Amino acid sequence: MQISHIEHLGIAVKSLDEAIPYYENILGLKCYSIEEVPDQKVRTAFFEVGQTKLELLESTSPDGTIAGFIEKRGEGIHHLAFAVEDGVQNALNEVSEKGIRVIDKAPRHGAEGLNIAFLHPKSTIGVLTELCENPNK
Amino acid sequence: MQISHIEHLGIAVKSLDEAIPYYENILGLKCYSIEEVPDQKVRTAFFEVGQTKLELLESTSPDGTIAGFIEKRGEGIHHLAFAVEDGVQNALNEVSEKGIRVIDKAPRHGAEGLNIAFLHPKSTIGVLTELCENPNK
Repeated sequence: MQISHIEHLGIAVKSLDEAIPYYENILGLKCYSIEEVPDQKVRTAFFEVGQTKLELLESTSPDGTIAGFIEKRGEGIHHLAFAVEDGVQNALNEVSEKGIRVIDKAPRHGAEGLNIAFLHPKSTIGVLTELCENPNK
Repeated sequence: MQISHIEHLGIAVKSLDEAIPYYENILGLKCYSIEEVPDQKVRTAFFEVGQTKLELLESTSPDGTIAGFIEKRGEGIHHLAFAVEDGVQNALNEVSEKGIRVIDKAPRHGAEGLNIAFLHPKSTIGVLTELCENPNK
């Protein structure tokens, strides 16, 4: 697979309303978009930092993945998303052939109109890893 | 503070010898340097991904910070490091005045010759945050 850069970093927070002021007033970043992704049960806030985005994730439901993550591990970095240049489906095929466990066998729609798929942290040495491509590029 | 980009992402692993082949053979990245940082009790392996580096961290001692992190939380993302443009000491002064708890009151030497300082995760919504500057730039 051909990774060009880190597309974004997903960070689990209890409350966007509490987290956004920290990122804006202390780190000096600017929230440029807030988006709800209903099938992932999250509300997300995006910040640009050079090539990479920070994606704050707030659960919209107590049974959502992010709520479960925070209950178990506390707030913090949830996943690492790479931009792949040769297509998410190609990358999934390639890593599956090499014995890597994947959460998604085919790309699905994520925030910001990206095609995304997750690899399983059991196969990625503890880092929940997302692969992304922008279908409009 | 003026953040230009994500300088690196620190990832705690049990063994560089086991982790490096995953990053090279599955993700297609290239380890360009291995460095020991004795006062942090770690051995580090670096990969470039666009503007950002991945810094794999292996503990060189059972009482090191990284060994403790893995014992408590397992392998995974350990910290997020921002490159600041207006100096680490200025950034520390600025955030301290705003009530942020810091681990380092003054910059110290990190891997790759950078000046670094850590903010405390209690003040950064669960993300252990490092500020970096390259003194040669």
